[in-house]
Amino acid sequence: MNLDWLKWDAKGLISVIFQDYETKEVLVLAYMNKDALQRTIETGKVHVFRRSHGKVMAKGETSGRYQVVKEICLDCDGDALLMKIEQIGGAACHEGYRSCFFRRVKGEELETIEERVFDPKEVYGREAAAAAHRH
Amino acid sequence: MNLDWLKWDAKGLISVIFQDYETKEVLVLAYMNKDALQRTIETGKVHVFRRSHGKVMAKGETSGRYQVVKEICLDCDGDALLMKIEQIGGAACHEGYRSCFFRRVKGEELETIEERVFDPKEVYGREAAAAAHRH
Repeated sequence: MNLDWLKWDAKGLISVIFQDYETKEVLVLAYMNKDALQRTIETGKVHVFRRSHGKVMAKGETSGRYQVVKEICLDCDGDALLMKIEQIGGAACHEGYRSCFFRRVKGEELETIEERVFDPKEVYGREAAAAAHRH
Repeated sequence: MNLDWLKWDAKGLISVIFQDYETKEVLVLAYMNKDALQRTIETGKVHVFRRSHGKVMAKGETSGRYQVVKEICLDCDGDALLMKIEQIGGAACHEGYRSCFFRRVKGEELETIEERVFDPKEVYGREAAAAAHRH
């Protein structure tokens, strides 16, 4: 992939929509910098820049919930990507739902339209404890 | 819909993914300000802020290619919306394709994966001429 096709914003980021390549469900809207995109293309797995670690890392490296890239599409303006992916480990959202878009607007209410795949308190609590133990 | 649920960026915009509510195809990633979102909710038709006109207008007001909103979902961070829509008039992209994501990355090449629904030169040429005639 030629990175010159893309228009990066003032912060050096590009918008990326993640869509399940089979169910076509929209899972996440995220932002990638050049390094994260390059590593994603090289490895076929979604990478993100983690500010807390100061480096580009595979998403779900500790949790086992990661994304395998099946297809990348570019929009007409070159400032957004659509990645069709296979979601491994059930949930793409850190809140424990399959999709980040798990709430629907219903008048003045928000209705949760998905079942939780995991309990974030339990999972991130355990991971945070393990990370603290390692350092 | 309570606009206080949303996080607006420094320019007062929020990202909106448009997805065909039936085929689940991702059509457009766009940005709305508060006025555009409010008019969209009130009318059930997608509105955008047109800088050239200095006001919020229904998308496709002249072209007849507009979007009827079927469902609005909010992401976990409250900084992105997913609008499931019915695309009227065939094409959502100003380039004449159904989706803005009509190109697929294939190694170092870009492959067009959709058929054109209309010829933008012909359509926008004609509309621009009509607009000039009115003023």
